[in-house]
Amino acid sequence: MRAVTFQAPGEVRVEEKPEPELLAPDDALVAVEATGICGSDLHIYHGRVQIEPGFTIGHEYVGRVLAVGDQVTRVKEGDRVLGCFLTACGTCFFCLRGEYHKCDFSRVFGHGSGLGSLQGAQAERLLVPRANLTLRAVPEGMGADVALFAGDVAGTAYHAVRSTKLEPGETAGVLGPVGLMAVQVARASGAAAVYAVDSVEERLAMAESFGAIPIHLTEQDPRAEIKRATGGRGLDVVVDAVGHPEALDMAIRLARKAGRLSATGVYAERCEVHMGLVWIKSLRIESGQANVIAHVDPVMELLAAGILDPSPIVTHHMGLDDAVEGYAIYDRREALKIVLTP
Amino acid sequence: MRAVTFQAPGEVRVEEKPEPELLAPDDALVAVEATGICGSDLHIYHGRVQIEPGFTIGHEYVGRVLAVGDQVTRVKEGDRVLGCFLTACGTCFFCLRGEYHKCDFSRVFGHGSGLGSLQGAQAERLLVPRANLTLRAVPEGMGADVALFAGDVAGTAYHAVRSTKLEPGETAGVLGPVGLMAVQVARASGAAAVYAVDSVEERLAMAESFGAIPIHLTEQDPRAEIKRATGGRGLDVVVDAVGHPEALDMAIRLARKAGRLSATGVYAERCEVHMGLVWIKSLRIESGQANVIAHVDPVMELLAAGILDPSPIVTHHMGLDDAVEGYAIYDRREALKIVLTP
Amino acid sequence: MRAVTFQAPGEVRVEEKPEPELLAPDDALVAVEATGICGSDLHIYHGRVQIEPGFTIGHEYVGRVLAVGDQVTRVKEGDRVLGCFLTACGTCFFCLRGEYHKCDFSRVFGHGSGLGSLQGAQAERLLVPRANLTLRAVPEGMGADVALFAGDVAGTAYHAVRSTKLEPGETAGVLGPVGLMAVQVARASGAAAVYAVDSVEERLAMAESFGAIPIHLTEQDPRAEIKRATGGRGLDVVVDAVGHPEALDMAIRLARKAGRLSATGVYAERCEVHMGLVWIKSLRIESGQANVIAHVDPVMELLAAGILDPSPIVTHHMGLDDAVEGYAIYDRREALKIVLTP
Amino acid sequence: MRAVTFQAPGEVRVEEKPEPELLAPDDALVAVEATGICGSDLHIYHGRVQIEPGFTIGHEYVGRVLAVGDQVTRVKEGDRVLGCFLTACGTCFFCLRGEYHKCDFSRVFGHGSGLGSLQGAQAERLLVPRANLTLRAVPEGMGADVALFAGDVAGTAYHAVRSTKLEPGETAGVLGPVGLMAVQVARASGAAAVYAVDSVEERLAMAESFGAIPIHLTEQDPRAEIKRATGGRGLDVVVDAVGHPEALDMAIRLARKAGRLSATGVYAERCEVHMGLVWIKSLRIESGQANVIAHVDPVMELLAAGILDPSPIVTHHMGLDDAVEGYAIYDRREALKIVLTP
Repeated sequence: MRAVTFQAPGEVRVEEKPEPELLAPDDALVAVEATGICGSDLHIYHGRVQIEPGFTIGHEYVGRVLAVGDQVTRVKEGDRVLGCFLTACGTCFFCLRGEYHKCDFSRVFGHGSGLGSLQGAQAERLLVPRANLTLRAVPEGMGADVALFAGDVAGTAYHAVRSTKLEPGETAGVLGPVGLMAVQVARASGAAAVYAVDSVEERLAMAESFGAIPIHLTEQDPRAEIKRATGGRGLDVVVDAVGHPEALDMAIRLARKAGRLSATGVYAERCEVHMGLVWIKSLRIESGQANVIAHVDPVMELLAAGILDPSPIVTHHMGLDDAVEGYAIYDRREALKIVLTP
Repeated sequence: MRAVTFQAPGEVRVEEKPEPELLAPDDALVAVEATGICGSDLHIYHGRVQIEPGFTIGHEYVGRVLAVGDQVTRVKEGDRVLGCFLTACGTCFFCLRGEYHKCDFSRVFGHGSGLGSLQGAQAERLLVPRANLTLRAVPEGMGADVALFAGDVAGTAYHAVRSTKLEPGETAGVLGPVGLMAVQVARASGAAAVYAVDSVEERLAMAESFGAIPIHLTEQDPRAEIKRATGGRGLDVVVDAVGHPEALDMAIRLARKAGRLSATGVYAERCEVHMGLVWIKSLRIESGQANVIAHVDPVMELLAAGILDPSPIVTHHMGLDDAVEGYAIYDRREALKIVLTP
Repeated sequence: MRAVTFQAPGEVRVEEKPEPELLAPDDALVAVEATGICGSDLHIYHGRVQIEPGFTIGHEYVGRVLAVGDQVTRVKEGDRVLGCFLTACGTCFFCLRGEYHKCDFSRVFGHGSGLGSLQGAQAERLLVPRANLTLRAVPEGMGADVALFAGDVAGTAYHAVRSTKLEPGETAGVLGPVGLMAVQVARASGAAAVYAVDSVEERLAMAESFGAIPIHLTEQDPRAEIKRATGGRGLDVVVDAVGHPEALDMAIRLARKAGRLSATGVYAERCEVHMGLVWIKSLRIESGQANVIAHVDPVMELLAAGILDPSPIVTHHMGLDDAVEGYAIYDRREALKIVLTP
Repeated sequence: MRAVTFQAPGEVRVEEKPEPELLAPDDALVAVEATGICGSDLHIYHGRVQIEPGFTIGHEYVGRVLAVGDQVTRVKEGDRVLGCFLTACGTCFFCLRGEYHKCDFSRVFGHGSGLGSLQGAQAERLLVPRANLTLRAVPEGMGADVALFAGDVAGTAYHAVRSTKLEPGETAGVLGPVGLMAVQVARASGAAAVYAVDSVEERLAMAESFGAIPIHLTEQDPRAEIKRATGGRGLDVVVDAVGHPEALDMAIRLARKAGRLSATGVYAERCEVHMGLVWIKSLRIESGQANVIAHVDPVMELLAAGILDPSPIVTHHMGLDDAVEGYAIYDRREALKIVLTP
């Protein structure tokens, strides 16, 4: 079968790979219908996340079940399905507490041996372990451009917003381009106002079309705007979907006293944090990767109901064979989301 | 000033009453702009809630602040304001925990000496104790038909839905006509589907216009409908906005295992409850009057943002002098909500 | 092997049964070291819960792992283990939310085909499906009389108390004899005072030795005692460990306004509930069987630390061969807990 | 009356000050029976917190009510009372949500005009505004050395531990000397094990006597010890009671994946935080000053029940006239807690 593989920093390739086969009784085999190129794929592309040359990449996918092991109960052969970007064991200390994202045996699709040696989804066919946890049937009539998001981007946005325990009638801020879906989740959570802070006009326009009040990071003064809009009080919750010290600093400043922050954007290193402000404002900060397995059911429901609609984010559709060009486009930041079809 | 007073079961009167005056430093004096007739006013009208003849009734109001004591900080003279249907002391055991609805010194407007001897809002002017807790400035441009709901009906709906901890993407059921606003709050909370069960076509149509899926109590089989719609699982949360054993029974049956119920409708007596089902389904039931003081800020934000819009519920506008006719109409169930203007 | 089987109401028998064998890759085979006779065994004994004649009963056990399937990771051959009274699938809608007690494929040991056809633990050897979920290694030095409780009685007490969200410094009431462990959990949760209401002197004395303030159900007036002890306010939380309308009524009356109730005692039918009081006091009631799989880790930690110590509850030790006599003694209410050793 | 006043960095003085008088209807006048010297007094003493020369300092106190305004309902003349270290307005946005520590009109005793111009408690008599919120009657028989802690140190420990939502059976770490009471609260919350990390033998010995497992910061390797004790997993919750980047770093490292941190120790500036670890471990951090007003009732209950007992922490009793010597001793770190009696 054809698959997109990592070769070297800046180089991916579409090549022939052996067909995957069922290995365990809770495995499923999926024929990929559509697969996304994601920001974390770019980390691999840039060599910042190191994986083995020849490893198939990709972790966002919609497909059809070709075969299942005999312990698979939640989907069956022939089902059109959506998959999460990772699997979990389901029985370790963390899984038993519903913290599937911190599973001791977590495996991420398309991230090499460092994250569980799970071949990626940018391929014609995919082996999916722990299918009961990570696969869900796609409701009748839901397009791949919608379903695709449930297992990663929308699940992450759901996690980011819900971890702040945003209540209807509160105000929210969302920092960064990855936060477009977080704007939608915040609106779906009943936020009376959602402020989207970004530096790119087009993305701000899209955030506005999703119901946010756009604030330009550099052409406006976000702190002054929020101060004015909230009578000086600040926002009840802020989502840092960037993962940069300046974004965290902004989030800390935009939050009200006793506000709640979600630091969802990826942090990989030490950085300076204004703990003095965090302390004096009595903030709560929740960080880390999203628990998409825990959220995939409600996220699918929200997508099915049209309450979340990520389809405007998909700017490019390409064939799997055009993946090399796809990565190049994405790398030049000319696309918000590219969907490949095998 | 003119005021609507209770005289005897089935008899109210518009009569002249003395002007109220500021008594305490946290009092406010409000000129009433609009005041609603509510279901609980009907309990007084019917003599089921006993109050003194001549007592001014009414507890829903919008108005303008005429004067404030020197400890009133949250509103000022001249402000257009919305008031909650009750006051609280702010410092007892319960208030300190934010349980203002269970305040040891709670007083309800227009409910006689049994509930704190607070003359009612169906009058030209109103004395409002603990103004910091119960009054809020009405945002620019918000109509009385909208603001009026924040202090009672919308606050109650908010309480009912939020006490179930409904999460975005879950499913909700709302039983009973008082639940029209609960439908809106459930939608605002991100419910993927809200099922409204009622027996009156017009109200079901309104529930549908608010985003609910209508189910006719007698012409359809609510249990079968919910079973079918949820693949046999049942609803994540159910709001019993009726307050009748049959409604509670329905709520218990419509809920999924480990579901959450809000028994917001008024219960006054012992009744039969299927505790066997409650136990085997591991349900959680939260009951009681709404904590509107705790919710008035977010509710006002939701109204201001247009996320909640109760105005379609107002079916009748009348002058305060027509209150006698208003009560008669309401008693004949010809109106959903009557707003009186002095 | 020898096993205790149900024959007819009032008749159990120790008989020879075939040895169990591993059937699935997540099964474990356990040599039983000790097994308890529990109140729910008595329901079977009395014929109130109907099971097939010849079915092995019992669901509380400690033992040693003889063999495991290749997907069993949390225990290994040779481990001394404690088991929960039920299993769960680990991947259904409910399991994914951590609601293992409401698993769509839940199976209870020793309860016949109605609850999953899982042969019981009052036997020399036991087949344990889903071993990763329901088995835990017993810490070095912990006696069987202690460990045995983790999978049922102590887990149930933990569930009952924690579902009330009792905070340190609050007050708790525990109704009924099954609540002896709930007294310990309430103390472990930091209850400033725990009131144990019961009608048997010996059990009240034991509750007192566990840190409770004993109140005799009939020789004292529980409502008056609690009123006096709490300055008229009532208790923050109340656990009904009885499962009888009068107990629920008492729980409702002993609770403070906005108090939280756990109706853990088994309810099987409709009964009269004072919903008027539940409403006016704004109570929250959480009901149902305990989620012991979710709690088994912290419960084992509390037992290992000696914070919970159920061993005084064990009044009788007998051989498995004496099970017939054991059931007779238990049926005459001469024992609090009987432990059988094969 | 005599009072301890700040004069200049390193210089306090006992001098004659005018008697305080009731100013508002919710004021109380208290004759101080005992007053503590606290770590934050030392910040004033060192000039790190700047206040006006001649301002009376101190914010921990027990006393007897001499007079109350007519809105004071929770204590009365003659009551022996305990006071919180700060007051709150009770009606602002934050107070209405129970976030009294972030009140827009918060005032701290003995901290000069920067924090509300409230003369301190190290004096013969004290004016207490908002008495309903900040004063509580001391239960019969409770010593001043116990009650004194409820309004500051024990309330802070309660806040620190409870903000982590520690559940019975979980494990906790407490960093720093201020955490001695946090050890007790963690034990009272049912922690199966509490690890106290400190660098002073005497304090470690006291922590051990409070039920903690002591770990010497420099003579042992805390990370290795915790790793060993938890099978490599780390602690469920960690309280940083230090307020130093190295402590926060330690807390981050000792926590398990998806663990919860309380950064209660005072942070005043920017500092380096290992956000990479915070992200990869999916930690939640809650920071800031304690909400002692919200916690004073349960803390008093825990003290009254003897579940918390801070009295061993009091190492010195001195007369108010010896305050100059008291500050010098405390500054030389020769005392854990000094109590002054006028």
